[in-house]
Amino acid sequence: MKQKRFILDESELPRQWYNIQAEMINKPMPLLNPATKEPLNADDLAHIFAAECARQELDMEHAWIDIPEEVQRRYRYYRSTPLVRAYALEEALGTPAHIYFKNESVNPLGSHKLNSAIPQCYYCKQEGVTNVTTETGAGQWGAALSYAAKTFGLECAVYQVKISMQQKPYRSSIMRTFGATVTGSPSMSTRAGKDIITADPNHPGSLGTAISEAVELATTTPNCKYTLGSVMSHVSLHQTVIGLEAEKQMEMAGEYPDIVIACFGGGSNFSGLAFPFMRHQLQMVNGKSSNGKWIDFIAAEPASCPKLTKGKFEYDFGDTAGYTPLLPMFTLGHNFKPANIHAGGLRYHGAGVIVSQLLKDGYMRGMDIPQLESFDAGLLFARTEGIIPAPESCHAIAATIREAKKCKETGEEKVILFNLSGHGLIDMTAYDSFLNGDLANPVF
Amino acid sequence: MKQKRFILDESELPRQWYNIQAEMINKPMPLLNPATKEPLNADDLAHIFAAECARQELDMEHAWIDIPEEVQRRYRYYRSTPLVRAYALEEALGTPAHIYFKNESVNPLGSHKLNSAIPQCYYCKQEGVTNVTTETGAGQWGAALSYAAKTFGLECAVYQVKISMQQKPYRSSIMRTFGATVTGSPSMSTRAGKDIITADPNHPGSLGTAISEAVELATTTPNCKYTLGSVMSHVSLHQTVIGLEAEKQMEMAGEYPDIVIACFGGGSNFSGLAFPFMRHQLQMVNGKSSNGKWIDFIAAEPASCPKLTKGKFEYDFGDTAGYTPLLPMFTLGHNFKPANIHAGGLRYHGAGVIVSQLLKDGYMRGMDIPQLESFDAGLLFARTEGIIPAPESCHAIAATIREAKKCKETGEEKVILFNLSGHGLIDMTAYDSFLNGDLANPVF
Repeated sequence: MKQKRFILDESELPRQWYNIQAEMINKPMPLLNPATKEPLNADDLAHIFAAECARQELDMEHAWIDIPEEVQRRYRYYRSTPLVRAYALEEALGTPAHIYFKNESVNPLGSHKLNSAIPQCYYCKQEGVTNVTTETGAGQWGAALSYAAKTFGLECAVYQVKISMQQKPYRSSIMRTFGATVTGSPSMSTRAGKDIITADPNHPGSLGTAISEAVELATTTPNCKYTLGSVMSHVSLHQTVIGLEAEKQMEMAGEYPDIVIACFGGGSNFSGLAFPFMRHQLQMVNGKSSNGKWIDFIAAEPASCPKLTKGKFEYDFGDTAGYTPLLPMFTLGHNFKPANIHAGGLRYHGAGVIVSQLLKDGYMRGMDIPQLESFDAGLLFARTEGIIPAPESCHAIAATIREAKKCKETGEEKVILFNLSGHGLIDMTAYDSFLNGDLANPVF
Repeated sequence: MKQKRFILDESELPRQWYNIQAEMINKPMPLLNPATKEPLNADDLAHIFAAECARQELDMEHAWIDIPEEVQRRYRYYRSTPLVRAYALEEALGTPAHIYFKNESVNPLGSHKLNSAIPQCYYCKQEGVTNVTTETGAGQWGAALSYAAKTFGLECAVYQVKISMQQKPYRSSIMRTFGATVTGSPSMSTRAGKDIITADPNHPGSLGTAISEAVELATTTPNCKYTLGSVMSHVSLHQTVIGLEAEKQMEMAGEYPDIVIACFGGGSNFSGLAFPFMRHQLQMVNGKSSNGKWIDFIAAEPASCPKLTKGKFEYDFGDTAGYTPLLPMFTLGHNFKPANIHAGGLRYHGAGVIVSQLLKDGYMRGMDIPQLESFDAGLLFARTEGIIPAPESCHAIAATIREAKKCKETGEEKVILFNLSGHGLIDMTAYDSFLNGDLANPVF
């Protein structure tokens, strides 16, 4: 009987994260102080983030960074996640492609987000911080942070995008179950929120508005740090446990991917899966290695929020109010108001700085997926593999199906690996709307 | 670093189910035809159930029954489930006890129920059945059956207990996502439902009412079989994969349980975990073996629906309308109307016939848990181990905590193993009510 799932022994789990910045040919451009336009250093960033995260953010030197023992211990609560061969999906598609997915949805919080929530809270605790705050869209990052904060004895305040809060009320309940305070964004509790509401009383919120509010809270509260679930380079760093595990698991399966796919909001689950595989290509270009296969890396984004395929590469703010440093990124503009699609985690105007540079340099490509195609893909995946995927992950599945269908046409037995970043059990209203024919395809 | 999770290689997965009936000293008493009071045979039962399930139901001979290859293949989509050492819970309790749980919540459908849904649908398909129907309380069984039916190409109709449908609307959405038709019970679509509604227009429904409706649909629809998620002996049989895996996994951990705990509705998750361990005791009593340790088996039931601790052992119907055979069981009476607790899967008046006999013979004991104590336990578990448990599973956790606290008093290093039968992500309204102080302790 053919093996379905590949799981690593705990002794095989990664002890280091992979820092792709150290091996990039063109390094990411610096983050700038918006007032002076001067490059920021780690001390500047440490006003907002944990000092160690700030250091990691700008580390262009060390390709491997030790995972603290305590973080490793907590990773063992749910890692490794399984690498799964999607036989039933392959059969339904009639494709010769071999489809694998990394199942981050079996994580107790339901998504990959915990991989970075644990180290961020760990570093905060180490540095004597007592309060953490953040933004969340669909709520997966907020849920992960709430649990991680609770286990490290930190108070946690979350600004959740208002439209997502209405679409998935259970995610707020989950955060409260872990003891967090949850506020819909934009809210009247911050200056940024008040300004946004005053300008547009019906603003549905976005990751950009919620980041503004959380950053404002962090900078005006003693002993409080801001944490972020995506976009930043230290978040991508923490997420590389996904790809490092997947590489070993693909080896267990006796295969190597031709195509690696993940959905794309700010870049966390894409980076986490892709960077460890991409390092072999960088090493080839660097002349450090002659081994390796050129992989087609695909970041699947919503057609209605297409910064990778239709954005501009330029310096922009990470949030709506303009509180963050200026980031060199593919962006739709920090005032871009994304359509109310159910993939709340992908409703963000910009891409992380590393990914932006890699996209510019041709190491990867974006693929934009209309909402209805994403749910079609999610439904087929559920009915074959038995897992209801998060609306975000549905984008990765849709891109996978497109590539698998191409293989059917050409007869190629390509190996496709995608990231199932989270389950959709808290998104059942979205599936209800889809099944009832009430969902639309918002355009850009 | 101490190992947290124990997972079996696919090559180590069980290839046979364990049929405890073959080794019981006092066999379960026969199922009776309510009209004639004559014992039923497999042919009689095959009018309602798949013929192979009917055969398994009455098999007192074979201790081991082969798991069909196709069922084994589908088990590999999610099995083995992890055995997990609950270090964080132990630490929070300050107990010297070693607490392990079998994590059935990482199953794609969120509970152990898929273990029996797959073989029941497989046998139906083999026998040329085209439609299956069932009842569901909390909806975990209904969700599992909906997915299993879809993968075998069977139409599926589910009667969901009305109060549970209101408490957890997402579960109906999950069933619809898998293509099932869902009707709230009692409904006006069956004679049984009409009678119940006529007598009590505000009847909240119970597993008993929903069984009546599903059985009526099955017996009045061509080529349609009824399936059940608990109570029946063939369901317990299928669920023994849990305990068979757990036994090997405890061996990996180098320990053996002193206490085995599971929540109890009709008996499916309790039986599944307990029976493979209990076989060693039966073999000792039988004189077949001199090895083995006497385990304290605890079935945790709601204080408001306490058939094990306060029910009578007698012949009773399995459903409200009296459509089923007469079953020899501990029961509160088939007209018993359970309080509207959130543990919808435990709102059932009777216990399966095997468990009833074992309880009568002193091989196990019941423990009744008030609703608030169950949620207190669930919250502590979530905040330590990171998994929000189903309200049903909270009862097992509460019983575990009681025993672990006893160990703290006595200083005993007992090994406690409990079944985390499912996650509570679809039950967030229950947690909301609990956190808001709106939940009560309904009495019996």
